[in-house]
Amino acid sequence: VTVATHQHGGDAASKAKAQTRLRKIEGQVRGLQKMIAEDRYCPDILIQISSTQQALRAVSKMLMRDHLQHCTTKAVRASDETAAEVYDELIDLMYTYSK
Amino acid sequence: VTVATHQHGGDAASKAKAQTRLRKIEGQVRGLQKMIAEDRYCPDILIQISSTQQALRAVSKMLMRDHLQHCTTKAVRASDETAAEVYDELIDLMYTYSK
Amino acid sequence: VTVATHQHGGDAASKAKAQTRLRKIEGQVRGLQKMIAEDRYCPDILIQISSTQQALRAVSKMLMRDHLQHCTTKAVRASDETAAEVYDELIDLMYTYSK
Amino acid sequence: VTVATHQHGGDAASKAKAQTRLRKIEGQVRGLQKMIAEDRYCPDILIQISSTQQALRAVSKMLMRDHLQHCTTKAVRASDETAAEVYDELIDLMYTYSK
Repeated sequence: VTVATHQHGGDAASKAKAQTRLRKIEGQVRGLQKMIAEDRYCPDILIQISSTQQALRAVSKMLMRDHLQHCTTKAVRASDETAAEVYDELIDLMYTYSK
Repeated sequence: VTVATHQHGGDAASKAKAQTRLRKIEGQVRGLQKMIAEDRYCPDILIQISSTQQALRAVSKMLMRDHLQHCTTKAVRASDETAAEVYDELIDLMYTYSK
Repeated sequence: VTVATHQHGGDAASKAKAQTRLRKIEGQVRGLQKMIAEDRYCPDILIQISSTQQALRAVSKMLMRDHLQHCTTKAVRASDETAAEVYDELIDLMYTYSK
Repeated sequence: VTVATHQHGGDAASKAKAQTRLRKIEGQVRGLQKMIAEDRYCPDILIQISSTQQALRAVSKMLMRDHLQHCTTKAVRASDETAAEVYDELIDLMYTYSK
């Protein structure tokens, strides 16, 4: 099992919380479609897109915290090699995929 | 009718394109829920969140272009007052709501 | 004179304000060098980098406001062609060069 | 010595590299002042601000890598408490201070 396919159960509570948020975000995306269909004022739609992006960022933050507490801890304590792998991934997530 | 409630039909083609993209984004958000349910590796989920955010950004860019071409042009040509209102909104969208 | 080389004097007051802010930013960048030379705690340096970026963003916002009020207004009122050019530039600044 | 004041020497080579980059960034900020003094076209100045921000981001990435390799590894291996402290800091750096 490599780091890339390693899984953790995370916190059942935090998983449920992420799902609730994602369902709300799904609703926001449907709301955006409705706003466009209704020909709403563009800046109002753009503000709603921004709000959807903020909501996704909150989910990302929650998952990142889980990732640090579980996978990162395990990898850093296992060996310098697995620590290096997990750090490369973190740097990518922070600087390539952030936002 | 104030600037805030002013509407424009936009381009029917660009409206259809935005709807297609938003439906795809809705699917991406459902995909994120599936990834969490399946206990997928956190960084993989985080990369998918980033991809969803990029997709929202592309819709935002498309709507902003419409907004400039239609509402902004009309407001700037109407008077210095309506121009100032539309610029305040643009500054907010760029620096407060951007991303 | 094309849009790309067109200049405007802007507001003398806002120009002076931008210069004051940039001198302060220059000092912040020298402060960062000092922090590294003194082997300060990395997260403290990272927070100072973030603060420098916020300060640059504030200058950018100020210049963007000038650009909208002066160049954009002139271009949008001149013709549909010069309006289109200035909008293409704005879209680039917002979505390619923003942050 | 708490985590907040803990220092590490980092890599002398990476420290020198960060200093070189910061001196170049200092020059870019002076260049921005010159552009404003010369009344250069706003979008050109805005693109240079964006370039300066990208350069700061590259320094941040370099320092973050050092921070992970040195301080984070030490804290994560020391105890669950020091690991939790360093993760809280990382989450802040990623989601509050990241640009």
